Amino acid sequence: MEVRKVILREDELPRQWYNILADIKCNPPIGPDGNPVTPDALAPVFPMNLIEQEVSSERWIDIPEEVLGVLKIWRPSPLVRAVAFEKALGTPARIYYKNESVSPPGSHKPNTAVAQAYYNKAFGIEKMVTETGAGQWGSALAFACSQFGLECKVYMVRVSFDQKPYRKSMMETWGGKCVPSPSTETQAGRNALEKDPNTPGSLGIAISEAIEAAVSDTSGKTRYSLGSVLNHVMLHQTIIGLEAKKQLEKIGEYPDVVIGCAGGGSNFAGLAFPFVLDKINGKKIDIYPVEPAACPTMTKAPFVYDHGDTARYTPLLPMHSLGHAFVPPPIHAGGLRYHGMSPTVSQLITEGIIEPKAVAQNQVYEAGVLFARTEGIIPAPETNHALATTIDAANQAKEEGKEKVIIVNLSGHGLLDLSSYDRYFANELVDLILSEEEILESEKVFEGFPKPQLLKSL
Amino acid sequence: MEVRKVILREDELPRQWYNILADIKCNPPIGPDGNPVTPDALAPVFPMNLIEQEVSSERWIDIPEEVLGVLKIWRPSPLVRAVAFEKALGTPARIYYKNESVSPPGSHKPNTAVAQAYYNKAFGIEKMVTETGAGQWGSALAFACSQFGLECKVYMVRVSFDQKPYRKSMMETWGGKCVPSPSTETQAGRNALEKDPNTPGSLGIAISEAIEAAVSDTSGKTRYSLGSVLNHVMLHQTIIGLEAKKQLEKIGEYPDVVIGCAGGGSNFAGLAFPFVLDKINGKKIDIYPVEPAACPTMTKAPFVYDHGDTARYTPLLPMHSLGHAFVPPPIHAGGLRYHGMSPTVSQLITEGIIEPKAVAQNQVYEAGVLFARTEGIIPAPETNHALATTIDAANQAKEEGKEKVIIVNLSGHGLLDLSSYDRYFANELVDLILSEEEILESEKVFEGFPKPQLLKSL
Repeated sequence: MEVRKVILREDELPRQWYNILADIKCNPPIGPDGNPVTPDALAPVFPMNLIEQEVSSERWIDIPEEVLGVLKIWRPSPLVRAVAFEKALGTPARIYYKNESVSPPGSHKPNTAVAQAYYNKAFGIEKMVTETGAGQWGSALAFACSQFGLECKVYMVRVSFDQKPYRKSMMETWGGKCVPSPSTETQAGRNALEKDPNTPGSLGIAISEAIEAAVSDTSGKTRYSLGSVLNHVMLHQTIIGLEAKKQLEKIGEYPDVVIGCAGGGSNFAGLAFPFVLDKINGKKIDIYPVEPAACPTMTKAPFVYDHGDTARYTPLLPMHSLGHAFVPPPIHAGGLRYHGMSPTVSQLITEGIIEPKAVAQNQVYEAGVLFARTEGIIPAPETNHALATTIDAANQAKEEGKEKVIIVNLSGHGLLDLSSYDRYFANELVDLILSEEEILESEKVFEGFPKPQLLKSL
Repeated sequence: MEVRKVILREDELPRQWYNILADIKCNPPIGPDGNPVTPDALAPVFPMNLIEQEVSSERWIDIPEEVLGVLKIWRPSPLVRAVAFEKALGTPARIYYKNESVSPPGSHKPNTAVAQAYYNKAFGIEKMVTETGAGQWGSALAFACSQFGLECKVYMVRVSFDQKPYRKSMMETWGGKCVPSPSTETQAGRNALEKDPNTPGSLGIAISEAIEAAVSDTSGKTRYSLGSVLNHVMLHQTIIGLEAKKQLEKIGEYPDVVIGCAGGGSNFAGLAFPFVLDKINGKKIDIYPVEPAACPTMTKAPFVYDHGDTARYTPLLPMHSLGHAFVPPPIHAGGLRYHGMSPTVSQLITEGIIEPKAVAQNQVYEAGVLFARTEGIIPAPETNHALATTIDAANQAKEEGKEKVIIVNLSGHGLLDLSSYDRYFANELVDLILSEEEILESEKVFEGFPKPQLLKSL
């Protein structure tokens, strides 16, 4: 019987995360005083145990037993050979997907949510506050908080809040609270509403609201949580790639191409970083993070120092950025509408170690529908971006007549995003592509900021 | 590291289904002439290869390789120890759940949908027609048809169609068509609308519509499909219990209590029948099918001969029935609103081999929310019925001070049913309990029908 799905036993779960900061150099975050941010300066925002992880350069970091205990509800996740998808494409490539949709919230996000909730709890924190775009992250944190008995408050980008009412229901079922952002609860939210009462919102604004709400709680028992971008988030997600490597080894395979969609970068990093380590050590692999053409952070925006949020509460981070005031078009992939990009992913782009791709909405849904009708799983809109590039890579393998091995991260399912499929079938999706003028305009906000150094890791 | 989740490799998948008709006696279905129905009489409705399975009394039936090939997308499904749920209940019982929510449509239903689509395809059929209550079955058949290149048409009970618009989106994403029932497309639908233009619909009416649509296609290339009740459906679902037995064996466990919710009976039967076989062979096990108090087929209705559908297109089936004209209250568990019950499950009840339970809506959602906040997965409303009885069994073990082993079928997730959780949190759910008068009234429709014999298998 042909193997379709490669699984690992629980005792084969990775026991350590891979920290890419052991292998690449990154510019430091810069504080309001123009100097690198100290751990102490971040203490009102994050618990110190996570700050220590954020700045660590240890290559391997132990995963606490309590975190593994919760991850075991759905991990190790399956690695599946996409035999029917391959057949439909007529490609000689062998395509594998890492199925992160099997977690209770339906995406890769709980990999870090569970770790963050654990570290907050261990530090004596009682409440976590965050923002969410599409709702995947907010759901994941509400789930994780329920596992460790923490309160959870989520600011959800308004356009997604309105499009996806059931995300709020999910968070509430896990005991979390969810409000649309911008809200009137914070100064950052009130400012955004004053500027535009009908704003669809943005992750940048929602991050500002969540940080403000966290640091203004004087009890000292509340902290902020970010679901992507930061080093410790990338770290926690590497369990995806570490599992995938073990799974491919079991069947004697190794990838020629590694693909993941990238909004803040975490699901991409989670799958790709363990393979980046191999590439740094000499392996030949093509590694593609994929973004929407409507929010082309990696493919069109410069590598700069910019704030992670609209109200400029965060330090300056070295990253590809469309500008912290950027309000992206309301495309149906809320998780990929962020103005910036993880500093580590950005650094790998500047060094040419990974090659970003941008794809337009209709191509993206076409890929998702083909995947649903062959492999069965209805993917999240974000995931469809990775699948569109997977099709491109499979077609390239066909043209070249090569039996390439492609691995793609199936970062989540789309069962809470079905209205966007309805719009695709009704031909209502528009291929928004940002113009050069719009990009130049949005970049004005970081004029005068310090410039990151062009570091070379290799 | 403590094991939480027991998994099987693909090569450990069961290769045969268990057919309970080898071990119990059932009354035959009766046709319009008052005699047992012949296979030929069913030929316009089902393909002959499935009819042969329906009437087979072979104990073990091979699962075709093509069916296993598709099931492998998500099977073997995980068996998970509900450690956090146990802890919250303070029970000495060890509770395991079989996680059927990991299939692409999110429930156990594709176990038979895939098999039925395969057999229809093998018989030369090009289109399958069915009905769906909550939408789980219609989604599953649309998914299965997409796997084998078949057309799919689904009549969806109107109350669920209106409550859950995304079920239609799911079916369409897989290439299926879905209309609310009663529709104006069939005589059965038009009759129902004439009787009550505002009817919420019922599975009984929707079944009539689907059968009528299938048999009135003169091409001969269309067949009807039923997602529960019938012998071959129960058969295909036994892969659940056969896997579960292997998984429990791996950790040296055997259940004292087996629990599943039951609408037509298939997810219950799927988990329970392989254990029923052990009980027949002398094992001591408590086996509980669970239904809503608002549709108390098993606990309040008599064992009779009745039609499976409202328009009386089906043969008379020996089953517990509230009457084929019964329109159940619009509770939020569409999959449990059927007037009848699988003949095999009904037979086991009459013999006292299994003991049905009935639970009310608020208790049901309370159980689901506790499960979500401990084990993480948000269960389907149907599944919550099984979880409510699981809590009762866990509490009984606590009272008795016994380390019982309980296994429950997590038949599906509730991600397409979140609006019902909203209503629960808003205190809008009513504990509808059918009165004796209402039951007596609804039973008038089968007065004068033949009576089934009280058979004894053991």
